[in-house]
Amino acid sequence: MTTTDARLNAVQIEAVGDLVDTITTNPDAAATVWSASVRWDGAFRSSATVRGFEPIPSDEPAGLGGDDTAPNPVEQLLGALGNCLAVGYAANATVRGIAIDDLRIDLRGDLDLHTFLGLDPDGHAGFRSIDAEVHLRTDAEPDAVAALHAAVAATSPVGHTLQRPIPLDIRPVDQEGPSR
Amino acid sequence: MTTTDARLNAVQIEAVGDLVDTITTNPDAAATVWSASVRWDGAFRSSATVRGFEPIPSDEPAGLGGDDTAPNPVEQLLGALGNCLAVGYAANATVRGIAIDDLRIDLRGDLDLHTFLGLDPDGHAGFRSIDAEVHLRTDAEPDAVAALHAAVAATSPVGHTLQRPIPLDIRPVDQEGPSR
Repeated sequence: MTTTDARLNAVQIEAVGDLVDTITTNPDAAATVWSASVRWDGAFRSSATVRGFEPIPSDEPAGLGGDDTAPNPVEQLLGALGNCLAVGYAANATVRGIAIDDLRIDLRGDLDLHTFLGLDPDGHAGFRSIDAEVHLRTDAEPDAVAALHAAVAATSPVGHTLQRPIPLDIRPVDQEGPSR
Repeated sequence: MTTTDARLNAVQIEAVGDLVDTITTNPDAAATVWSASVRWDGAFRSSATVRGFEPIPSDEPAGLGGDDTAPNPVEQLLGALGNCLAVGYAANATVRGIAIDDLRIDLRGDLDLHTFLGLDPDGHAGFRSIDAEVHLRTDAEPDAVAALHAAVAATSPVGHTLQRPIPLDIRPVDQEGPSR
């Protein structure tokens, strides 16, 4: 039984269980810090490095002045949300004993360019709203699937970050000029 | 002069100028829609596809039950913010005639795992706050650099998306089960 559970959706659910046990006995263990480092590569190109992984490249479409070599930052944001929801479905389905046969999440967000382009200085430069269409294929009962959808929406780190106002501290440090 | 301006920071600033002209005469042209499609790849692995670009892979560290093959979604979110700020610096510096010699942005965010793990169902699963340390190397005057920092913070699409509560519609569509 343990072996079967451990393989549902290919998720190593014991690791999640161990973490839950750890945090239950030591709540401070739930405090995590995540980081990324971005390097500007010229024009509108840049790349984000996380731990030892391949940098995530970024660019803008030609219509926005870029060289169109990679997804742009707002598309990456949608991707991060979708990837986060995918983890949420895998984790919550597994603890509920639901097998996922297939899962695809299509994300869309609408954004008005006036503020980004400096044409509406006090406006909102970001997404006005974001839609995520969840295409889930499973044999589970409809009630169980509905509860799964609710659990994922209620626990998504990226989803909650977007739905709440997050304090953002953009801080220039050690301004290193003049360079010559 | 046009040629020189066009090459500052390698940015094709005419494209941005053209877009500003277009939107000034036709404000509706500022309404843009962005999208991404995420496919679950088993366990906590997934990938986000944007237009025709290489999918952005996603996974979780082993301690969170993943196979640790890629940055996780909250790290991707930090990367998206940093990439967005990099575009903002490149664009705003270029229109102000500021040459950027080097730019690196280090991002950190703290996140409590209780809600993600279902241990605090009504809590906040996302980042509590996010810090972005901007390491900018330029010969520009301090006042011009200070104005540049302010302009970037005031116009960042990802930054604004994080700082404001964004309506998120997570919608199951055409539940495709049973599969057999």
